[in-house]
Amino acid sequence: MPRLVFTPQNKEIEVETGTNLLQAADQAGLYIEGDCAGKGTCGKCRVKIVKGDPGNPTKAEKKHLSEKELAEGWALSCQKKVKEDLTVEVPVQKEAHLRKTTLAGGVEDLEAEPVVEKIAVKLSRPAVKDQTADLERLLKQLDREDLTIKLRELSGFPGMLRNNNYTVTAAIAGNRIISIEPGDTSDQLFGIAFDIGTTTIMGSLLDLQKAEVIAVTATTNPQNIYGADVISRINHASEGKHELKQLQDKVIEAANEIIKDLLKQTKIARDRVYEIIAVGNTTMSHLFMGVDPTYLAPAPFIPAYSRALEVEASELGLDINPAGRVTFLPNIAGYVGSDTLGVILATEMDKRTSNCAAIDIGTNGELVLAANGRLMACSTAAGPAFEGAQIKQGMRASAGAVEAVQFIDSDFVIDTIDDAPAIGICGSGLIDSAAALVDAGLIDKTGRLINPEDNPDQAPDKFKKRIKQGDNGLEFILVPGSDSETGEDIVLSQGDLRELQLAKGAIYAGLKILLKEAEVKEEDLDEVLLAGAFGNYVRKESALTIGLLPRLAPEKITAVGNAAGDGSRMALASKSIRERAFALPGKVEHLELSTRQDFQEIFVDALKYGQ
Amino acid sequence: MPRLVFTPQNKEIEVETGTNLLQAADQAGLYIEGDCAGKGTCGKCRVKIVKGDPGNPTKAEKKHLSEKELAEGWALSCQKKVKEDLTVEVPVQKEAHLRKTTLAGGVEDLEAEPVVEKIAVKLSRPAVKDQTADLERLLKQLDREDLTIKLRELSGFPGMLRNNNYTVTAAIAGNRIISIEPGDTSDQLFGIAFDIGTTTIMGSLLDLQKAEVIAVTATTNPQNIYGADVISRINHASEGKHELKQLQDKVIEAANEIIKDLLKQTKIARDRVYEIIAVGNTTMSHLFMGVDPTYLAPAPFIPAYSRALEVEASELGLDINPAGRVTFLPNIAGYVGSDTLGVILATEMDKRTSNCAAIDIGTNGELVLAANGRLMACSTAAGPAFEGAQIKQGMRASAGAVEAVQFIDSDFVIDTIDDAPAIGICGSGLIDSAAALVDAGLIDKTGRLINPEDNPDQAPDKFKKRIKQGDNGLEFILVPGSDSETGEDIVLSQGDLRELQLAKGAIYAGLKILLKEAEVKEEDLDEVLLAGAFGNYVRKESALTIGLLPRLAPEKITAVGNAAGDGSRMALASKSIRERAFALPGKVEHLELSTRQDFQEIFVDALKYGQ
Repeated sequence: MPRLVFTPQNKEIEVETGTNLLQAADQAGLYIEGDCAGKGTCGKCRVKIVKGDPGNPTKAEKKHLSEKELAEGWALSCQKKVKEDLTVEVPVQKEAHLRKTTLAGGVEDLEAEPVVEKIAVKLSRPAVKDQTADLERLLKQLDREDLTIKLRELSGFPGMLRNNNYTVTAAIAGNRIISIEPGDTSDQLFGIAFDIGTTTIMGSLLDLQKAEVIAVTATTNPQNIYGADVISRINHASEGKHELKQLQDKVIEAANEIIKDLLKQTKIARDRVYEIIAVGNTTMSHLFMGVDPTYLAPAPFIPAYSRALEVEASELGLDINPAGRVTFLPNIAGYVGSDTLGVILATEMDKRTSNCAAIDIGTNGELVLAANGRLMACSTAAGPAFEGAQIKQGMRASAGAVEAVQFIDSDFVIDTIDDAPAIGICGSGLIDSAAALVDAGLIDKTGRLINPEDNPDQAPDKFKKRIKQGDNGLEFILVPGSDSETGEDIVLSQGDLRELQLAKGAIYAGLKILLKEAEVKEEDLDEVLLAGAFGNYVRKESALTIGLLPRLAPEKITAVGNAAGDGSRMALASKSIRERAFALPGKVEHLELSTRQDFQEIFVDALKYGQ
Repeated sequence: MPRLVFTPQNKEIEVETGTNLLQAADQAGLYIEGDCAGKGTCGKCRVKIVKGDPGNPTKAEKKHLSEKELAEGWALSCQKKVKEDLTVEVPVQKEAHLRKTTLAGGVEDLEAEPVVEKIAVKLSRPAVKDQTADLERLLKQLDREDLTIKLRELSGFPGMLRNNNYTVTAAIAGNRIISIEPGDTSDQLFGIAFDIGTTTIMGSLLDLQKAEVIAVTATTNPQNIYGADVISRINHASEGKHELKQLQDKVIEAANEIIKDLLKQTKIARDRVYEIIAVGNTTMSHLFMGVDPTYLAPAPFIPAYSRALEVEASELGLDINPAGRVTFLPNIAGYVGSDTLGVILATEMDKRTSNCAAIDIGTNGELVLAANGRLMACSTAAGPAFEGAQIKQGMRASAGAVEAVQFIDSDFVIDTIDDAPAIGICGSGLIDSAAALVDAGLIDKTGRLINPEDNPDQAPDKFKKRIKQGDNGLEFILVPGSDSETGEDIVLSQGDLRELQLAKGAIYAGLKILLKEAEVKEEDLDEVLLAGAFGNYVRKESALTIGLLPRLAPEKITAVGNAAGDGSRMALASKSIRERAFALPGKVEHLELSTRQDFQEIFVDALKYGQ
């Protein structure tokens, strides 16, 4: 079998002849970026073959790679079938998600109200006059005769009791003893809150007795090998039990990596973690739990369940205390998941009396409106444009991404993350760029890029050097190849502007429909909350400029950070917040936009660029 | 590795050099009788080496086998270490337990009151106007929003629903959905009741909608490779987790064999069996559940638990519906298990107002007394003498066992099971023999066998030919070698009479102490119930003659069959009886005999033979 060496990770692996490099990298445990699930259409899974014959380029490679790049050994890993030994250089992904993990809020002011209780007891010694069985002795001392216990814990209990001078500690959740531990461990009580995103998975380790976040980490959702969006993943899972299991295994493995990292950071033993709370969109919930998501995809978009599912960690193979409780918060509808529910929890939308909208933009876009005593939610087919997918040089928010573009003093001011030479454009850079182009008069309300050369009356002539003809229409050069990391121009294409237009139009249309249902005028909105990492980095002014949001005063717009993740942490830290979460699906009205008669008209109206 | 062939089963196996034949037979899945766990002291694990060199006999073999037998290739399988290829003939065990399985009572007059409920529903189809999730749709239709469900069942539910025109059947126990099945299967509801004996495991398959036993089967408890009695098994389990697991694996494998056989007999699918109820002594309960039994052995004899343990079938690896409930009924004390509780249930001792005692003699002996509004229980160190262990030619109740001996018209009338040529003596034969010797005046009250030759004044001279000198004292010849299957005399030895004396004395002493505590005189006992297969076959008159029981009119004594097994079946069939079972441990006073000051005196008094 051919042998592959991946650098700089220095991973070696033997693979079957004919395996493509994307699959091989996955087998080796490496992550190569990509959005099209190996179809060769996104052109993002570039690698450089530094030893061995790269073979003839495919059509897709010719499209996405220049002659020079091909000559240097660059290839698209999804296109390259392995026939012989190769050494492959994988471009290092600067951790896009690290930015997300800095947003670990939500529990600062919470009172610790853990669901799991730890109680240390010293039992009386048995004797012929008191032959009470060990378990009964424990339950009597705890004054909890109703408790049940797993065989796993009971099995070694008699020896543990006698080896520890009859002092043990019980971890109790509801009417279940999760764990019996030797000696007094009552001061150790930990849990992990997960935010299972389509793109990024984030985990926070909490000390539940202090309601304190003590470590945070994140990783890429490795399900992306099956596609960047939820529909691709549903389609794969629909193929059969094996395929569903593949997707479940991927997310569970990633969760275990996060757990391992959190425990390593804090030197806490896995058995002292008794709870996991997870939020995510409805598809992520189904895949995490291994439940068939097939019928989420076609209308009428029916989930298998909406309530919170509570299972044992061992059932899912999650590496915390095996009897630990894993709770995925309830979803509201097929495309409004517990991540949105987390946003509602964290922003207290369910308690607000003002007219308030929350917009969570991740790989999908969900909206919530609290108005006139009602709480409504909908999802929009915003697509992952804001995370850089389907954007020609789109990338996630990592070093070298164009993240801020402003039109100041009649010129463009462009910033990249970490001030690194530009590689591509991330979500906030995309919106900023489009807004700057609106400001500069280089796009019209229909979203058409204007070439100053052809339309000297419409667009300033001084920018004619920044507009060029690309493969598919005009392109605006943000950073010339001479200044970029790749040597190529970093551009915003007409296609990119269309993608953005569809995405922002979908969100704005969703908001318009929620307002219409609630009989609230746009100008009567008291507040708009922008959730998600995206919401945190996007400039309000740009969002207003391109018409992602209604015409509101910028001070009415607030970024609330990763509110979904905050909601997860809050539900982990507080029993009463968790109970609020369980009751929420019954209080939120879900609007299904896709089948509404008025959707098309409102959507078209929402597509306009500029205000 | 040497290759062994076992005949007549024709099983072939390769084993490590040095493995003994007893272990090898176990590895091959064969059962060889034996009581001493391979110590070479019981002499019962005989096999015949028909091909290959048997090697030199060990001391133990010389003791238990005659020169002639050794010359013929007979060996003790525990003594024979394998060095080369051998063909080994294993004497067929005529199924001793088949007699036990004919006693499948307990539920004839019960009203069916199943704990698991099956409900078929036809759900309305989802639509954009009604996007209720599949699970919520089901629970709403069932009007049971409180139900929980296993991921295993939920995983494929969406597809099942749509492939079956939205008709499914739920099996519900308490607040759990055990199973969701395609279409309407509401008429299929089965459960299995187990009686886990130290020696024999019995299973009954019940149609729970009719409270009807539809198949019964039994097998030897394969834990016997680790010793015939509970103490040997506790000792083995105490050695470590691995050893405990070995014992658990044995009993679970045997239970699965029984399940397989029951399902094959009735052509019922395993997934339609939703419940298992088990009874057994406290050690069997611990080993079945895989819980450390170490502290049952030394005083103060403390079980790990006494309540009923309810677990999922999949946790134990039992081959019924994976989410099926397995309930081991509660034990009362370290040596008074749920088998005794089953006896109380079946005989309704807890409801009786008369003075009534129940005696269950199996591998151990337990007693229950209902008197003066109290319900008391104790265990006795009766040992397995009544099952033929520690008796020179003892055997279980299978073909060729001397089962009935009467002294009629001044002579002995001897019957064997199936009228087959005699091989040995079973429990009822042992008691009958002793009683007949009392009647014939051949033993005195101290249990000494009288040789008519030496004591012509005490014992009839005509029996002097039936008394001979054995290796360890006198022996009474029940069947001369000329008439026996083995060619050897079938004898009752002085040693056998002593074993019986200790066993019957222990039981009688236990009863005496219970009566003393209850302040009831022996003559005020209204009824004595004899439970267990033994109780069914023993002649009351003989039991009275040897002083196993107090001097009562024979009509006060009733054999109640396998009451422990009956109790198990009843608790399976009826929810209210099961609830009665759960409450029983709190109602039964346990007396610990072994540490009582008065025990020795009462025991010595109870040893007397004859009345």
